[in-house]
Amino acid sequence: MRYLCAMFPLLNNINLPEDLRKLEASQLPALAGELRDFTLQSTKTKAGHIKSSLGVVELTIALHYVFNTPEDILIWDVGHQAYIHKILTGRKSKFAGNRLMGGLSGFTKRAESPYDPFGAGHSSTSVSAVTGFAEADRLMGKSREYIAVIGDGALTGGESFEALNYLGERQLNVTVVLNDNESSIDENVGALARYGGYEKLCEALHLEYYCVKDGHNVENLVNTFKASRETNRPKLIRVCTQKGKGWKALSENKAQSGAQSFQDVFSRTLIEIAKDNSKVVAVTPAMISGGGLQDFKQHFPNRLFDVGIAEQHAVTFSAAMAASGMRPFCHLYSTFAQRAYDQIIHDVVLQNLPVVFCLDRAGLVGEDGPTHHGAFDTGFLNTIPGLVLSAPIDGASLSALMRTALKHEKPFVIRYPKGGNFDPGQPEPDLPTGKLRLLKKGEEKAVISYGAIGQEVEQALTGLPYSHYDLVFLKPLDEKALLEIFKVYKDVLVVEENSPAGGAGESLISLKNRAGSAVKLKCRSLPDEFIEHGSRAQLLRKTGLDSVSLQEFFRT
Amino acid sequence: MRYLCAMFPLLNNINLPEDLRKLEASQLPALAGELRDFTLQSTKTKAGHIKSSLGVVELTIALHYVFNTPEDILIWDVGHQAYIHKILTGRKSKFAGNRLMGGLSGFTKRAESPYDPFGAGHSSTSVSAVTGFAEADRLMGKSREYIAVIGDGALTGGESFEALNYLGERQLNVTVVLNDNESSIDENVGALARYGGYEKLCEALHLEYYCVKDGHNVENLVNTFKASRETNRPKLIRVCTQKGKGWKALSENKAQSGAQSFQDVFSRTLIEIAKDNSKVVAVTPAMISGGGLQDFKQHFPNRLFDVGIAEQHAVTFSAAMAASGMRPFCHLYSTFAQRAYDQIIHDVVLQNLPVVFCLDRAGLVGEDGPTHHGAFDTGFLNTIPGLVLSAPIDGASLSALMRTALKHEKPFVIRYPKGGNFDPGQPEPDLPTGKLRLLKKGEEKAVISYGAIGQEVEQALTGLPYSHYDLVFLKPLDEKALLEIFKVYKDVLVVEENSPAGGAGESLISLKNRAGSAVKLKCRSLPDEFIEHGSRAQLLRKTGLDSVSLQEFFRT
Repeated sequence: MRYLCAMFPLLNNINLPEDLRKLEASQLPALAGELRDFTLQSTKTKAGHIKSSLGVVELTIALHYVFNTPEDILIWDVGHQAYIHKILTGRKSKFAGNRLMGGLSGFTKRAESPYDPFGAGHSSTSVSAVTGFAEADRLMGKSREYIAVIGDGALTGGESFEALNYLGERQLNVTVVLNDNESSIDENVGALARYGGYEKLCEALHLEYYCVKDGHNVENLVNTFKASRETNRPKLIRVCTQKGKGWKALSENKAQSGAQSFQDVFSRTLIEIAKDNSKVVAVTPAMISGGGLQDFKQHFPNRLFDVGIAEQHAVTFSAAMAASGMRPFCHLYSTFAQRAYDQIIHDVVLQNLPVVFCLDRAGLVGEDGPTHHGAFDTGFLNTIPGLVLSAPIDGASLSALMRTALKHEKPFVIRYPKGGNFDPGQPEPDLPTGKLRLLKKGEEKAVISYGAIGQEVEQALTGLPYSHYDLVFLKPLDEKALLEIFKVYKDVLVVEENSPAGGAGESLISLKNRAGSAVKLKCRSLPDEFIEHGSRAQLLRKTGLDSVSLQEFFRT
Repeated sequence: MRYLCAMFPLLNNINLPEDLRKLEASQLPALAGELRDFTLQSTKTKAGHIKSSLGVVELTIALHYVFNTPEDILIWDVGHQAYIHKILTGRKSKFAGNRLMGGLSGFTKRAESPYDPFGAGHSSTSVSAVTGFAEADRLMGKSREYIAVIGDGALTGGESFEALNYLGERQLNVTVVLNDNESSIDENVGALARYGGYEKLCEALHLEYYCVKDGHNVENLVNTFKASRETNRPKLIRVCTQKGKGWKALSENKAQSGAQSFQDVFSRTLIEIAKDNSKVVAVTPAMISGGGLQDFKQHFPNRLFDVGIAEQHAVTFSAAMAASGMRPFCHLYSTFAQRAYDQIIHDVVLQNLPVVFCLDRAGLVGEDGPTHHGAFDTGFLNTIPGLVLSAPIDGASLSALMRTALKHEKPFVIRYPKGGNFDPGQPEPDLPTGKLRLLKKGEEKAVISYGAIGQEVEQALTGLPYSHYDLVFLKPLDEKALLEIFKVYKDVLVVEENSPAGGAGESLISLKNRAGSAVKLKCRSLPDEFIEHGSRAQLLRKTGLDSVSLQEFFRT
């Protein structure tokens, strides 16, 4: 518990907000300085989280100083900006283990602390959640304060509007703190942010409006919260902050190996395709940098549509683009595709419109943990009739699938994980829709893998005589080739990196059953449970999907 | 083509909007009268659609009169109010077959007409869609008019806000017509509707604002559209209309048989449960009447939360209520649960909060067709770890499952279809979580059904000696009992009313495979394709799920 005591004279004596409340308001700026230093010294990973947290140091202090947490309900939208909140609410000593396996989550989490009454990870839920607490208390005759803190980026997500519209009608005593740092994940978009029309929005929705122009003046913040607390109406307090205030960028050590990740390959291929076909456009909800689309933006600034955190709009918009004759590549993180599930069904696939969904961050994502693992997309998409589902084993296959998708002219999904290390000179295979691919001819057993987990399979097969097939397409299944494999081998092993229900394993077992085949099928997928955070290597090991575990699985 | 010519002197000469445009503006009110009469005479089903369409007779005439459809893009949100649009765009002669199998869809549909550039069925997508068309044209150097018509109820869905926020930033030449009839499906909710703050919203989002107070004055409408067309900025034109203008209610012939539907049972049981437990509340996104919640509202006006068309908010709000100690029953139509899929995962199940999801309209819904069939919920929910999935075969089972869910204190799903005809005096079975149930002891073969389709199975089994089991719970599976069944019978037949991927059939096949059982398993589910509209009986027949088809399936 003793962190360089001399450097943190105030922070040393604060373990819980009740300690903080013993300070004079005039001491709070000094505490803010200590918290910035402490945060920077304690954690070096995930710049996005640290910068978001550094932007709300004063805001966090002021909230816990004025409001009686945890009795008062304080909910952080997304929860990635809650590092200061964690340090001030009993988690200081554990903070260095943040985002490491077994350590603190990178987000707020109910199981972690009573100061986290509602967890998060995805954006735009906090206002809905806080109204739920307020309504429950109203029914039970209880009264306290309810605060949601939401960034201007997260405010663009439609659920925020649904909740504000509800709040304004119900006139609950809820404080929405709008952390206006003019950022989404990339630069924020949308008319509200561009024109700053928050006060007008509040008038439209019958919310009181306050504005703190210098969100780094902690005494101002304290005074504003004290004043606003006097009314029992719903209010929005806009606090202007600077994301990453106090952040010192580390020198970029990006390896210049020439190797490419899936994201690099996605970007390079999309540029190539777009050069050849003027109808090709890219759509992304706030994931330009995460998805590797910076280069595409350089090349085709008018053909990249970053719609902000607004997955539903991104998908319907893509559908309409396709209806209009364009060829949209809609880039979504697997976990955020959950936000646009209805639009994928109702607007794209039911209308048979040729949108190519590039589902990034499929499978285990590592340190972001259970809110972000791309574990479910295979199952929830496999239920949709006529949708092509594919997954590349490597960079060259991703590139090939993007070209196949363009030719296919129907709704098409390509799922791939983060990272990878591919030689850009690797020749591209031909991957026609619905065809599996033999990677290594062997005997005795056949291993069939779906997607990038096939690389672990390749390693696991070193020294083993078995055949290796890349399924490539889960839908449509290459039934003819699969039935042939079921005939030739006595044992078939299926490996995939997604939850089991509706996945490749179940699809192949179902095929076997329909065909009345006697082949012995065994499947390895992600387990049917939520998977905690940790490094990708640790999680692969834990779920039995690393090459060592797989080799054992194949041998027995 | 000759519909009572004398009655429709103007309409008789109109097959396409180009015919309409030949009329003098002064003739349009008379045409409106003819259209009302024609609609009322031609179709008698689905009052919601007819009333919505009757409210926009003048609006529809004015739009096609001023804008150059189909060259100009006109998109109807939801598409249920598009009957007049259909009559004026070449579908007059087919209109009597509206919503019948093989006839016109009850919604707009791309495959049906070039005047339907983007189909619908679910709400709140039209503004996203129209911006997609406008952006595509901007890229291709094309220019025309783009109009979305959206009701004030559909505007509460978050995607509308995502799209308006986008539109305001991009300053596309798009006209959003807000059909303000002060209705959602039930009475509209939300601050915007209550306080009518549309003009302020437009200021916040940088949209031009117009208002036509009498939306039944067709000449006014024509003049407003002509004027607004002169600017190339995005605009919102609020048109105040009266839903169902000219509607003559038929006398209600609700059978007083005393029999209860699933919806009646849901309502009655929820009232009983709520009387015993003050923590029980009901949450619904605009489905009070559809779901049978009117009585609950009578009994517990403060404990029913109708949040309007806002499924995402409904689910996160329910999660927070549960976190606060309440016991929410969140009522969603299966098809609309797709809109809140991420919230079900991220806010409810990941946090293990005891929300009971009552998924109404599961399975085939009949005349509403492919946008509304509840075909996918089983598959997309089965991927979620730890979520209990159940389905009652009849009313008594629904009631029993609701009581089991309350005791279970974890996330719990109950899916059931519309309708049913149950004796309220039927004794309730005890349905503990994760246990299947023997309905009829027989020999040779065992039939295992999941959910209400079990009633067709019961009928199909008349005269057959086979056993009948009700699975009741798809998750957790009653593995022990199932493995016992696999041992006792050589043939097991599985019947369910949902798409195959991730369903009961695949789950049982997967269990059989893991256990190495030699039982012969055959499954009947909905086919892996989108299913058109028609009566429920016709569709059951078509998909092989009616008792006649099932009997054949069981015999062979």
